[in-house]
Amino acid sequence: MADYIESLQVLCEQFARLQGVGRKSALRMAFSVLDFTDEEAECFAQAILDAKRKIHLCPVCQNLTDQELCNICRDETRDVTVICVVEDVRVLMAIEKVREYRGTYHVLHGAISPVSGVTPDKIRITELLERLKDDRVSEVIIATDPDVEGEATAMYIAKLLRPLGVKVSRLAYGVPVGGDLEYADEVTLSRALDGRRDF
Amino acid sequence: MADYIESLQVLCEQFARLQGVGRKSALRMAFSVLDFTDEEAECFAQAILDAKRKIHLCPVCQNLTDQELCNICRDETRDVTVICVVEDVRVLMAIEKVREYRGTYHVLHGAISPVSGVTPDKIRITELLERLKDDRVSEVIIATDPDVEGEATAMYIAKLLRPLGVKVSRLAYGVPVGGDLEYADEVTLSRALDGRRDF
Repeated sequence: MADYIESLQVLCEQFARLQGVGRKSALRMAFSVLDFTDEEAECFAQAILDAKRKIHLCPVCQNLTDQELCNICRDETRDVTVICVVEDVRVLMAIEKVREYRGTYHVLHGAISPVSGVTPDKIRITELLERLKDDRVSEVIIATDPDVEGEATAMYIAKLLRPLGVKVSRLAYGVPVGGDLEYADEVTLSRALDGRRDF
Repeated sequence: MADYIESLQVLCEQFARLQGVGRKSALRMAFSVLDFTDEEAECFAQAILDAKRKIHLCPVCQNLTDQELCNICRDETRDVTVICVVEDVRVLMAIEKVREYRGTYHVLHGAISPVSGVTPDKIRITELLERLKDDRVSEVIIATDPDVEGEATAMYIAKLLRPLGVKVSRLAYGVPVGGDLEYADEVTLSRALDGRRDF
């Protein structure tokens, strides 16, 4: 039915291109837009253009920003001697939510995955090495995802950094807090045993 | 975190205004937009403006269209002697999907609900009465939702139409096909019993 109304169909297709949006949701969203006033629709369209035009990567840590430097690199209270390396801005946001980490970040924008054609030069590793020329950096915490690609990326970066004399650490592996041991997978349990700590 | 990037925050808020979109989904969608090329983002923004600008209500049946008349009113093979009255364009789409009904529609754009301040003059009843001046109309099928507001609307319209000498019918109530009788609610079961038919 939406097929008969070309502009509705086009709008549905646009919504369906967004990550995690299926056909039914796209149609529901398109209907929401029709319920908007003209002004509201213009604000929406403008917000898309603005976000796309203004947001770029922070030249230091590759985080997203619409200023010259990102909010973390601008913040003078952050500890510039520690850099936490993440695959994605969403991971950075998740760590920031904990409000515990006070160092800086480096966003790779991906993980090494030869199968998908993501070679080390396609993610922001060069920019990380560039930052390490600053002698103030004393530790790099690698917080890539605990999957095959994340592991490969972590190993690759660790190997590159070791000769530079900087401390390289990794997030602890183990059973998630609040989880049920009965349902933990074998690899996680094995890592949790390996990484056991004294009381 | 998105709070620190104003244009990202604004885009998230815009997505969150869409029906059925929560904060997390809005953020995910905003990130999708950032992954778009400039051209793709412009197409998206344009699709919103186009849909809003081009789509209007069909002057005959109040269905959505971007042409002069909607696709159903334009279709000369449709039976103009029957009008199916629905609350919403989405219901019209659902009935069209069955590909069985060949009559026309009338979209009310709401249901009478004194509690929410929707009085009969706020939905498209006048336009329906106007259409009935055409002597060709022989039957009006009321397909409002089977809830309190839908029922009230159906009764109201039926009362208005009866003096006009047009046949007024209602969708059958009963147990849904494929449903489990054990879980059918009492009112539905009672209506299904009332409406029982001979084998």
